[in-house]
Amino acid sequence: MTTKQIVLASRPKGLPNPGNFKIINFELPEIKTGEVLLKALYYSVDPYMRGRMNDAKSYAPPFEIDKPITGSIIAKVLQSKSDNFKIADFVAGMLPWQEEMVADENILKVIDTTIAPASYYLGILGMTGLTAYFGLMQIGKPKAGETVVVSGAAGAVGVVVGQIAKIQGCHVVGIAGTDEKIRLLKDQFGFDEAINYKTTAHLKNAIAKACPKGVDIYFDNVGGEISDAVISNINFYARIPLCGQISLYNNVEMPMGPRLQPMLLTRSVLMQGFIIGNFKEQFPEGIKQLAEWVKEGRLKFTETTEHGFEKLPAALIGLFKGENTGKMIVEA
Amino acid sequence: MTTKQIVLASRPKGLPNPGNFKIINFELPEIKTGEVLLKALYYSVDPYMRGRMNDAKSYAPPFEIDKPITGSIIAKVLQSKSDNFKIADFVAGMLPWQEEMVADENILKVIDTTIAPASYYLGILGMTGLTAYFGLMQIGKPKAGETVVVSGAAGAVGVVVGQIAKIQGCHVVGIAGTDEKIRLLKDQFGFDEAINYKTTAHLKNAIAKACPKGVDIYFDNVGGEISDAVISNINFYARIPLCGQISLYNNVEMPMGPRLQPMLLTRSVLMQGFIIGNFKEQFPEGIKQLAEWVKEGRLKFTETTEHGFEKLPAALIGLFKGENTGKMIVEA
Repeated sequence: MTTKQIVLASRPKGLPNPGNFKIINFELPEIKTGEVLLKALYYSVDPYMRGRMNDAKSYAPPFEIDKPITGSIIAKVLQSKSDNFKIADFVAGMLPWQEEMVADENILKVIDTTIAPASYYLGILGMTGLTAYFGLMQIGKPKAGETVVVSGAAGAVGVVVGQIAKIQGCHVVGIAGTDEKIRLLKDQFGFDEAINYKTTAHLKNAIAKACPKGVDIYFDNVGGEISDAVISNINFYARIPLCGQISLYNNVEMPMGPRLQPMLLTRSVLMQGFIIGNFKEQFPEGIKQLAEWVKEGRLKFTETTEHGFEKLPAALIGLFKGENTGKMIVEA
Repeated sequence: MTTKQIVLASRPKGLPNPGNFKIINFELPEIKTGEVLLKALYYSVDPYMRGRMNDAKSYAPPFEIDKPITGSIIAKVLQSKSDNFKIADFVAGMLPWQEEMVADENILKVIDTTIAPASYYLGILGMTGLTAYFGLMQIGKPKAGETVVVSGAAGAVGVVVGQIAKIQGCHVVGIAGTDEKIRLLKDQFGFDEAINYKTTAHLKNAIAKACPKGVDIYFDNVGGEISDAVISNINFYARIPLCGQISLYNNVEMPMGPRLQPMLLTRSVLMQGFIIGNFKEQFPEGIKQLAEWVKEGRLKFTETTEHGFEKLPAALIGLFKGENTGKMIVEA
């Protein structure tokens, strides 16, 4: 059986372009015992994939030239030689960018499409939702009545953090970079306050005003001067989960800033970096809770969906031009 | 009954001097029900007292002009109208700098002089030991085989941290500022390695060499560039208890340095400020464990002792001239 596959044709310098990708025909092997034949339904397109297009060591290994791009995919079982999966099951896994694929049973998980649409398992019930959930709940440890500030608040993770913090009974303040995003945070996602850092002259004072009782949890997606302004309003015994530092990703030299330790010390503050893999033992519990909130209508999620397998390279390139709102997905 | 009392005569600018103190005669009141009459035996003299001589709000309130200096004191019960204390009991409490004093039963604790000398309750079994114990054990969470780096290692807290880390089976590296201290750390306190930051050209490299498996716990007493050098050698999942930032205490402007968050994020590191009061519910457990190690000879402690009540002002002034090794105590 022949299928289509997208391979890395060359490594990009700076922004990726269509020439870095190539769509080829690929002959699928026969499925063996312990394997399944899958048809892809939804492909996740994520910023971290850009890093894997470089030939540099990181926690995820680089893609290889002339080998397929891989990513999170939701697929349907067409044939099965595994006791764990039957025909028509919906599964999720890290899989190659192909229309159909043969996969080992050990890298797949069945997903329950009765509690949420299948595509949600790439976002709110996938890495995005779990990052928000565990970062906030396990490191932030919110208590009702506390104040939570989220930077990068209109990003895929940020909107989930804010909504979970509201469910926990917190006062929630988001920081984002356009008036449209500020409106969205307040009107659609229920943030109590939202601040446009690009149009606010005194960010520190604006945060102080939006947080009259100070900041108990700062969920940091961006780093840099925005974080300096938040941390200058931090309370005794505050928690700062470090989820992203996107404002610093393009720095070549070591970025400098005010030393944090005196503030963290005198106010007994906790700051902790994490990646979602640290919590993998608890994923089932997290997915269950997130699915429940989604079902109850307490957790909303935004997806940008492109249609057609051949749109995958353009969707990935589009991520870096800000063409998406929330999670970027390609539907087969 | 008349006793002697030391009061704050005037507030110092910069280093305190003898003129800031005054020894006066003080008429003790009759003891009432629930009170005891005490004779002071040992006075604790600590750097934090300098802050209380200023008229500025902090977590400890300022001393008042013409009112007695107060501090940790070990005393013996001379008379008792309390059911909790009997004559000849040894007690510890925050008490005024007087030769004798009347005190409420609620601010005193009996100490057990059968397990350690009374003066130890001002140091290794007092704030100093408890700060080392809870900072290392509760925030650092050492595991056998891990590497622990301590800055300000020859200070009263530092030597205790290093010894507890050795008891936990860790590889222990101290950083201090004189060759005499380096010798002391290795010969007397059992540190595996010790680095003189003043005579080491490439501190980052020296730490890397002393820590071939990287740094799992960094117990930070000093902050600044020494901390930058340690943190550039930090391991995945490391813990950084922030105990002091003495290198920055005299800064007037906000000190600048490399931004830490990218490193803490990519390596899933925890950094946490604390003061010993955060752990007060667990003090009895901590004292018990520390006393056991002292009794077994596994935990050594250095005191500098001055003799005579009237030496108290000079002992406090001497702290800021580096005249002490380890804990500074005045014996009555």
